[in-house]
Amino acid sequence: MAKDFPTRSENYSQWYNDLVIKADLAENSAVRGCMVIKPYGYAIWEKIQAALDKRFKETGHSNVYFPIFIPKSFFSKEASHVEGFAKECAVVTHYRLKSSPDGKGVVVDEDAKLEEELIVRPTSETIIWDTYKNWIKSYRDLPLLYNQWANVVRWEMRTRLFLRTAEFLWQEGHTAHATREEAVKEAETMLAVYADFVENWMAIPVLQGVKSPGERFAGALETYAIEALMQDGKALQAGTSHFLGQNFAKAFDVKFLNRENQLEYVWATSWGVSTRLMGALVMAHSDDNGLVLPPKLAPIQVVIVPVFRNEEQLKIISDVVMPIKKALESRGVSVKYDDRDTHKPGWKFAEYEFKGVPLRITIGPRDVESKTVEVARRDTLEKEILQITDIEDKVVHLLDQIQKNLYDRALSFREQNTFRVNTWEEFLETIEKGGFISAHWDGTAETEEKIKEATKATIRVIPLNNQKESGRCVYSGNPSEQRVIFARAY
Amino acid sequence: MAKDFPTRSENYSQWYNDLVIKADLAENSAVRGCMVIKPYGYAIWEKIQAALDKRFKETGHSNVYFPIFIPKSFFSKEASHVEGFAKECAVVTHYRLKSSPDGKGVVVDEDAKLEEELIVRPTSETIIWDTYKNWIKSYRDLPLLYNQWANVVRWEMRTRLFLRTAEFLWQEGHTAHATREEAVKEAETMLAVYADFVENWMAIPVLQGVKSPGERFAGALETYAIEALMQDGKALQAGTSHFLGQNFAKAFDVKFLNRENQLEYVWATSWGVSTRLMGALVMAHSDDNGLVLPPKLAPIQVVIVPVFRNEEQLKIISDVVMPIKKALESRGVSVKYDDRDTHKPGWKFAEYEFKGVPLRITIGPRDVESKTVEVARRDTLEKEILQITDIEDKVVHLLDQIQKNLYDRALSFREQNTFRVNTWEEFLETIEKGGFISAHWDGTAETEEKIKEATKATIRVIPLNNQKESGRCVYSGNPSEQRVIFARAY
Repeated sequence: MAKDFPTRSENYSQWYNDLVIKADLAENSAVRGCMVIKPYGYAIWEKIQAALDKRFKETGHSNVYFPIFIPKSFFSKEASHVEGFAKECAVVTHYRLKSSPDGKGVVVDEDAKLEEELIVRPTSETIIWDTYKNWIKSYRDLPLLYNQWANVVRWEMRTRLFLRTAEFLWQEGHTAHATREEAVKEAETMLAVYADFVENWMAIPVLQGVKSPGERFAGALETYAIEALMQDGKALQAGTSHFLGQNFAKAFDVKFLNRENQLEYVWATSWGVSTRLMGALVMAHSDDNGLVLPPKLAPIQVVIVPVFRNEEQLKIISDVVMPIKKALESRGVSVKYDDRDTHKPGWKFAEYEFKGVPLRITIGPRDVESKTVEVARRDTLEKEILQITDIEDKVVHLLDQIQKNLYDRALSFREQNTFRVNTWEEFLETIEKGGFISAHWDGTAETEEKIKEATKATIRVIPLNNQKESGRCVYSGNPSEQRVIFARAY
Repeated sequence: MAKDFPTRSENYSQWYNDLVIKADLAENSAVRGCMVIKPYGYAIWEKIQAALDKRFKETGHSNVYFPIFIPKSFFSKEASHVEGFAKECAVVTHYRLKSSPDGKGVVVDEDAKLEEELIVRPTSETIIWDTYKNWIKSYRDLPLLYNQWANVVRWEMRTRLFLRTAEFLWQEGHTAHATREEAVKEAETMLAVYADFVENWMAIPVLQGVKSPGERFAGALETYAIEALMQDGKALQAGTSHFLGQNFAKAFDVKFLNRENQLEYVWATSWGVSTRLMGALVMAHSDDNGLVLPPKLAPIQVVIVPVFRNEEQLKIISDVVMPIKKALESRGVSVKYDDRDTHKPGWKFAEYEFKGVPLRITIGPRDVESKTVEVARRDTLEKEILQITDIEDKVVHLLDQIQKNLYDRALSFREQNTFRVNTWEEFLETIEKGGFISAHWDGTAETEEKIKEATKATIRVIPLNNQKESGRCVYSGNPSEQRVIFARAY
């Protein structure tokens, strides 16, 4: 097993990168900035997708699919959107190749130039609102509550597996509403859905709040976000939900007849999470021994490793293991029984530890006699001997405990790394340690920018239901009515 | 409800197109050749995906994700592949836009030209085999049994919703094996998986066979296919599975150390089905009243329509309906109870008939008294009065019957439209009627091409386990050892 990688304290960034690659989650591809998501990584993403998709449907949403290409002109229709998205993108200019003159390869056929260039979607508001125009006539057609699972492309210069890649996978919800209130409520509902998922499935506590105007999505009136704290003290934006007002309806001329028979622009939201969540998952829980996965997202929740010297012993062990495996599976637990004779138990222990399998059960001939097994937890690395009697109940209970422990551990880490800061000196000192800083801000974009320039820290969120508290801005000294959360971020 | 569309006999092609659009399955988008898959259509696709994905996993496959972009040079590496795929494709040449000089829009930034153009994947063999090179060292790394669900782009000039679109959704399996035998077996296994799915879930009988060399996938040594017959007598290729030999391994230099410690090229397969299946589903079963969906793929399997004159009546009906709905749902049946007072029962009947909901249950105040409901089948349009007692069992049984009836009906149609033809005159006459023609062929590409030129008919498959039978080629009169299946095709 590949233990040949730095510890978190030696080089957190390298630790992350090596871990993602060596644990078979993903790797860089032959195409600059694009990743290959490997089977083990994709299996986690599938669990993320399934859990989120269920929640989307429970909250009334349906899935749809819109084209990957967006005509260039669409981007110019919403003024702030074009600034935010239309610049660094993949541009399709031709639709044909032809054999090269030397006959050895292919070249672009200049006769097959598109009249209008197509952009590979960086996000789909424009093409979706251009379509919604045809779907919405009256208040009876509203709301539209749609989501799509798709790939998107943003031409990033510096890429990191999962965290920032040119192509990534995500879901983007795009809803249309008859009233401002309903749209705001939708944006808040989806933020809550994200927060619930990240906390209860990914076991990562998040701060919920709104972004400062400077950090808003290009085209939004309000951007709601959930922010998580990674083990190196940097923040990671795990999901966003945008109240778009009537901006896209106006840009694409989408009006509806309201109950009073008057034409009105439609209200919009959009919301998304991406394969970036995979990066958050790795960085929040894993340790110097490898991945640590919360049971609810682990492709293998329990691995059973037999310790045997010959086929006869293996058979005796397997006779005990198979009913346990079956019983666990009937309880919804995913179990791998690794009875290969090509690898030694020690190799298997290291392998599954590195891959973050939450529970390992070891069983040898003597365990069979004593009707016990050894159970090892990945989160605490603790081992205990358990009676085989009602082992299923114990395993299910342990998985719950691990899920809870990971969350509690991450929450405790965040609490220890959240600092109330009142002076600029304190701010400068604290930001070097990492973590969330709760500090007063005068509410101006100018101050926000100055703080960013001086420290690379940005306002992560203005927490929801923030306590009002009069004070002085940590940078300008001007009056402030609330604290906001600063951090350096991914 | 939109009944304003031609019948099949009036204009089959228009009937199909109108049906897809008016039944809210899909529509054309603002981007030439690309479609928008609407919620009702996407819900069917999700059921197709779920059923196939389960089968892929049961046969040992895992999902992965490879980049959407493929460097242009990759296509030149496999000679026949480049001919087949690299020509009509979307070419990314630039990675940035900038504000236009007039400030009103955006233009391509000529400074941001890619060194090598990127092709939006038309299929992923090249990038996948370029990656497999790094994953395969020894026979111990084999087999690789991977699949991806993805969007692909082929720049089609004439597009039709679902059947032929520039962008479509599909799955592509790409496997790597240590031996020829294992790879051939894999290609055959996946053909069987497809056939089983299309027959038992889509209720469409298929012919299984291999393609003639002229109809093979670009780069394959053998292409296995399943072919279905549509109601207009044209064939539709519903899925293909390719034995690729060592072609891609040689093109991308992928070798492994075999058990004898010798370096050998890896053996490959690829296999795929796409949103084209949606087109097959519509064309195989639907009628002049609208969609007809097999229960196993219907987003709504049972709709319950209450007939009421006031709120009081609705309440009495709902009290009876809710337990039935719940009981059906606990049996895994998806039920919609449409108790809206904004639409009349007659409108609802037409709506759900048009949308292909397999079973409709109607219940009014008198039904409540007599403890009965009216049940209408979409496939036969038959109605019957059923006692509410054990209605769940009856509904589940009826859904099974509908599923079976659709298959039987399609099979009977195919049997009536499959013709053994022995002379060229007969061939010319029969092909105009449509259907499958079973005829002798001399095995040459030349004859195949001549037949195609003369009749637009192609060899759909050489059936698996084809009976050997000596005869004379229907076109050339030369000796032939077996009959093959000809048809005009989508």
